[in-house]
Amino acid sequence: MILTVTLNTALDVTYRVPRLLPHASHRVAAVAERPGGKGINVARVLAALGHEVTATGFAGGPVGTVVRELLARTPQVVDALVPCADGSRRTLAVVDDSSGDTTQFNEPGPLITPAEWSRFLAQYGELVRGARAVALCGSLPPGVPVGAYAVLVRAARAAGVPVLLDTGGEALRRGVAARPEIIKPNAAELAELTGSRDPLPATRDARRRGAHAVVTSLGPDGLLAVTAEGTWQAAPPRALAGNPTGAGDSAVAGLLSALVEGADWPDRLTRAVALSAATVAAPTAGEFDPAVYEELRHAVSVRVAVGS
Amino acid sequence: MILTVTLNTALDVTYRVPRLLPHASHRVAAVAERPGGKGINVARVLAALGHEVTATGFAGGPVGTVVRELLARTPQVVDALVPCADGSRRTLAVVDDSSGDTTQFNEPGPLITPAEWSRFLAQYGELVRGARAVALCGSLPPGVPVGAYAVLVRAARAAGVPVLLDTGGEALRRGVAARPEIIKPNAAELAELTGSRDPLPATRDARRRGAHAVVTSLGPDGLLAVTAEGTWQAAPPRALAGNPTGAGDSAVAGLLSALVEGADWPDRLTRAVALSAATVAAPTAGEFDPAVYEELRHAVSVRVAVGS
Repeated sequence: MILTVTLNTALDVTYRVPRLLPHASHRVAAVAERPGGKGINVARVLAALGHEVTATGFAGGPVGTVVRELLARTPQVVDALVPCADGSRRTLAVVDDSSGDTTQFNEPGPLITPAEWSRFLAQYGELVRGARAVALCGSLPPGVPVGAYAVLVRAARAAGVPVLLDTGGEALRRGVAARPEIIKPNAAELAELTGSRDPLPATRDARRRGAHAVVTSLGPDGLLAVTAEGTWQAAPPRALAGNPTGAGDSAVAGLLSALVEGADWPDRLTRAVALSAATVAAPTAGEFDPAVYEELRHAVSVRVAVGS
Repeated sequence: MILTVTLNTALDVTYRVPRLLPHASHRVAAVAERPGGKGINVARVLAALGHEVTATGFAGGPVGTVVRELLARTPQVVDALVPCADGSRRTLAVVDDSSGDTTQFNEPGPLITPAEWSRFLAQYGELVRGARAVALCGSLPPGVPVGAYAVLVRAARAAGVPVLLDTGGEALRRGVAARPEIIKPNAAELAELTGSRDPLPATRDARRRGAHAVVTSLGPDGLLAVTAEGTWQAAPPRALAGNPTGAGDSAVAGLLSALVEGADWPDRLTRAVALSAATVAAPTAGEFDPAVYEELRHAVSVRVAVGS
């Protein structure tokens, strides 16, 4: 079983409008809802790849109830979310059908009490012992200690379970010091952590801060990995048009899926890049296109990266 | 008891953002939720004025559950909403704190089945017999027959209960032909009904289409009423700065409240204009400021309107 942690689960709501006009009134042409938060997205992709997966984190209030009801429609993902009294958040993506552009609104998330955090830690401690790998994903809701990910990384390491951390800001800074197996920053998160926007030196710098491996997302140019076994850049064979929402979560699922199957780094990166590109190419945000994935996993280029 | 009907109830959600930037990502600084739909707003104002009030219409799904939970916090409003299988809609107002402007998104509403519509008609038929007045407010959700308001107007008239209709488009066109006591169009609804943007001739035209009285909202200039007893324009003593959301619903509450108390038309209009202006002046959208209401109800000017 692979365990994914989403402390700040969300109901991802998408509105389609013919054209977004600030300060006007819009009839929403279509409304879509799905359970979200980065770890939930990772869990769904892992399940689609055939892995047993358990999702934990917090869910509360009427929005949390809807998240759990929708999650139950993916029965391959075991729901181990911990209830919280305050309500889970929504995210809203307003898609402008005239341009295809998206305007995003993110609610702040529930206030987690110390007692709820303690209940989560007990639940996590039990789950991690049965896990082959752990993904810690996304932002921290209010009330959760800023060093939360460091605590969760250490608990996984103590149980001998590899752990991937995908977050940003202070949560990443503190979490990386606890020596996770992998971190997967994007360019902005990497720059905030290291102060550098030069991918290779910044990725190396991030690794010196504690992670065993750093896999930096380069957007359409693929992934850059600095690991104990080597340094690689993996890229899709061509640029794919589409919606990049969830592409990073698919990369995380690819890395973990290949890791638990014992694949080496070039194979892990190939799978992550192919899944990520197949997610950009899919018509629904956060889903991946299986045909594109099958095609690309034989076409991703992995080369040894060298440089200053 | 006054009965308010809201076929398309809503959860009104308000997001505050520092600045709205199309195609960017926004952290929402504050989220507020309240039960909405025009008839629900009317019921809340009537309750604040000390009237017994019952709210009916449809509520369904997780959003409908939240609407009913929030409505229960106004215990003076009796909840007689009819369950529907499809989910009630949300409306979202995004308030830009840099300008104070609001961008509005309205979901379409649940699909009502013929069986649900029949259940509602039975419930309405019982409630209307115990009512002193009825308010029929807002848009029709999908599945409800476009002639719905004509049916509801006739049922109220058959029971000898005065009925106010506040809607637009084809629902208004069909409803007015069933001869409601009062309709309360705004300038846009009146122009759509009559083809004229000249308030006095258009209001007279609307009355010839069947309503016993037509009260046209002139925005900050108050109300124009064409009735069997006379024609009046009622205006606040000064322009009030603020948020006009819900001002029309407060005007409806003022008209019905004065009607059931036996007030004449000038007094009904005075109350409606004072409540409407006190709603614009209140800090929270849809609430009215009691002090401003008390001040204005002695300061509204009502004059006989004459003209072509």
